[in-house]
Amino acid sequence: MTDRGSAPFKFRAIDVIRNKRDGRELSCEEINGLVHAYTVGDVPDYQVSAWLMAVVLRGMTRAETAALTDAMLHSGEVLDFSSLPQRKVDKHSTGGVGDKTSLVLAPLLATAGVAVPMISGRGLGHTGGTLDKLEAIPGFNVNLAVAEFRRVLETSGCAMIGQTPEIAPADRKLYALRDVTGTVESPYLICASIMSKKLAEGIDALVLDVKTGSGAFMKKEKDAAFLAELMVETGERMGKQVVALITDMDQPLGKMIGNALEVIEVIEILRGRGPEDLRELCLHLAGWMLHLGGVSKSVAEGTQLSAQLISSGKALEKFRQMIQLQGGDVRAIDDTSQLPQAKSTKHVVSPTAGFISSMQCEQIGTACVILGGGRERKEDSVDPAVGIVLHKKVGDQVSAQEPLATIHYNSPARAQEAASLITRSIQIGDAVPPKRPLIHRVIQKSGDQP
Amino acid sequence: MTDRGSAPFKFRAIDVIRNKRDGRELSCEEINGLVHAYTVGDVPDYQVSAWLMAVVLRGMTRAETAALTDAMLHSGEVLDFSSLPQRKVDKHSTGGVGDKTSLVLAPLLATAGVAVPMISGRGLGHTGGTLDKLEAIPGFNVNLAVAEFRRVLETSGCAMIGQTPEIAPADRKLYALRDVTGTVESPYLICASIMSKKLAEGIDALVLDVKTGSGAFMKKEKDAAFLAELMVETGERMGKQVVALITDMDQPLGKMIGNALEVIEVIEILRGRGPEDLRELCLHLAGWMLHLGGVSKSVAEGTQLSAQLISSGKALEKFRQMIQLQGGDVRAIDDTSQLPQAKSTKHVVSPTAGFISSMQCEQIGTACVILGGGRERKEDSVDPAVGIVLHKKVGDQVSAQEPLATIHYNSPARAQEAASLITRSIQIGDAVPPKRPLIHRVIQKSGDQP
Repeated sequence: MTDRGSAPFKFRAIDVIRNKRDGRELSCEEINGLVHAYTVGDVPDYQVSAWLMAVVLRGMTRAETAALTDAMLHSGEVLDFSSLPQRKVDKHSTGGVGDKTSLVLAPLLATAGVAVPMISGRGLGHTGGTLDKLEAIPGFNVNLAVAEFRRVLETSGCAMIGQTPEIAPADRKLYALRDVTGTVESPYLICASIMSKKLAEGIDALVLDVKTGSGAFMKKEKDAAFLAELMVETGERMGKQVVALITDMDQPLGKMIGNALEVIEVIEILRGRGPEDLRELCLHLAGWMLHLGGVSKSVAEGTQLSAQLISSGKALEKFRQMIQLQGGDVRAIDDTSQLPQAKSTKHVVSPTAGFISSMQCEQIGTACVILGGGRERKEDSVDPAVGIVLHKKVGDQVSAQEPLATIHYNSPARAQEAASLITRSIQIGDAVPPKRPLIHRVIQKSGDQP
Repeated sequence: MTDRGSAPFKFRAIDVIRNKRDGRELSCEEINGLVHAYTVGDVPDYQVSAWLMAVVLRGMTRAETAALTDAMLHSGEVLDFSSLPQRKVDKHSTGGVGDKTSLVLAPLLATAGVAVPMISGRGLGHTGGTLDKLEAIPGFNVNLAVAEFRRVLETSGCAMIGQTPEIAPADRKLYALRDVTGTVESPYLICASIMSKKLAEGIDALVLDVKTGSGAFMKKEKDAAFLAELMVETGERMGKQVVALITDMDQPLGKMIGNALEVIEVIEILRGRGPEDLRELCLHLAGWMLHLGGVSKSVAEGTQLSAQLISSGKALEKFRQMIQLQGGDVRAIDDTSQLPQAKSTKHVVSPTAGFISSMQCEQIGTACVILGGGRERKEDSVDPAVGIVLHKKVGDQVSAQEPLATIHYNSPARAQEAASLITRSIQIGDAVPPKRPLIHRVIQKSGDQP
């Protein structure tokens, strides 16, 4: 932090804007002052948006990023679950297509003796959202008040809700402003937004799943790694254990995309079945969470324990318990026809024989939005029943006219548009493409050993 | 302008913000769309302030700067004085301390057969403003409607008013926003603001007086020259003759600072007396204006003619006529005790003997603001009577305890504060300092010859 002499600090928004504009490092007092004044309405949107643009173009130091995260975190309630004997660990993903790991991890970790107080978001743009997936389960209530959230967590060891007005109100206000002022795309602002919300959950440790590839917000691994390092360091500066995995989002994760369909795939994984990539990522993330949660000595041991808790059926039972505690219809677990179902299905077939060489993953996510399964704008509603089931993934062999995917739809016109987009999104080549790793890198504090 | 294909243009503020943020050149349509939508209230302040900050940090091309100027110019009424037989020429200064040249030039040029439809501003910060100086003349009305402005101009060949709501409303709104969002300091935005207002006056040519030195907004000559070149090129792109003089503002211009005091010095100059630097700059600017106005073949000839029009008393008579037409009390010309007078005066004396080696010119302007002669905020009122009379300028010899300046004040406490600041602002050395030129450079279109 820059020392500007010993004069008592007097906050003036215009000075904070000018200092950032001119590339000077802001002090904790300046950042705190701005975030606090904005949250209570003492600084107008037009000053904060100018400041946000200056941050996008000038960047922030690590100290500023931590100060911003801290100010946003303390703009509202910071939950305290210290009365629970378990360590509290959460996972956060930067968003992708078919990423339903949260629904697997919360019950799995709770079974293993780590508490997971998970506050999640909704889908936006081409990415899905955990809350939308949970709400595909009839009756499931993601809008629990803090007291109810605590009760579910104490009873089952996991609970999954949406952001409450008490948690990081500064982030809510800042995010809405960033969305309309072209100031979303800053790793520093993204870091502060994610970390302030996650650390407000009262957790001891956090595993970050930072996606990279054609379906991720950060298409380039370099950008994903930069954000990951920033979040890990910010977490450390705030006294939390944080590890980031850079994982592949160059094709959808698993085979199901769409809210009810993804719940089916979660149940498959919790039954010890389901697609290999999804199972591998869930077990690996769980391994890290158990390691950071102090349950396993290593990530490998945590992964092994997680696999056992799935085979034993305990993780699925925990999922059932959480659904029941949050008002959901548990019959859906044993009979997935209880979940919302689309009226019709149609195949998207391969125009030619060969090998799937690549997928434009973001476009496949967009195809699901076109079907009604996601939202372009925050205020849009979501159709839980629609979606896409992929029959082939990158590297798979395919014959001409063989189904590549099945579309679950309620509107034939939308299905047509989605089918056409999916066809364009899947490239077929003559040879097996080189295999991309599922987990590209692990970024952690130097000294930590898996 | 960048060609983005042939799809019909659909204006979205967020796209314009993002394009500027990412360093892409904006099209005329984008700039026009944003300025128009903002002026009519279709785009909120918070989007425009983010865009302004992106402009500050990313800059603009010459084409973008001209497009912005053009959009702001056409956001309101563009005056048309083509019915007047004379060529219409104006002068604009970027602001300084003791700069009262406008009050000399308008009547002087009108006498020489060039019409001067001058729309001016008020003082802000350490700089004085033409309107405040004019209003020191009892009864002088700067708030003429356009029809009245035209009548005065037709009758006397010059008229001096404040900005009207009809002229460049986009600039009015943008300037207010820039003022509170740290986005004033951009040469591109400064250029568009000045040029849009000046070109809305319906002029044929413009002489810019771009100040540099310790009392200027652009302390460094390099920055002043950059802005000057930008304004000259913008004017050319819009089909106007524009010349910029980079002139010295490392010490106050003339010897009088403060509104009524500056009117006295203007009358001195129009009587063929007054301080040499002020007279020299007025004659040089007048020479350029007469040259661009087609009255003189060269700047030198224009300067000579101007000197004659002063000696003959015609310029002073024109000043008298303009004051009368705008409701002012002409007795002030022959008896300056009719102007507002401060209750008391006091000397600021030299602590030591030597030569004046430099002045912190901005601080001397601030001393006048402290006395009440300027304003820190737009809504402040101004005391026309107070001010500072300098007895010494840079290079002058001084004895110990000899008066450096006389303060005209109405509040003893303010006088004390101003005196202390003035003392600190004037450096005394052992030797005559090197002389700075009054006119540093002339910036004009290649091909123009003085």
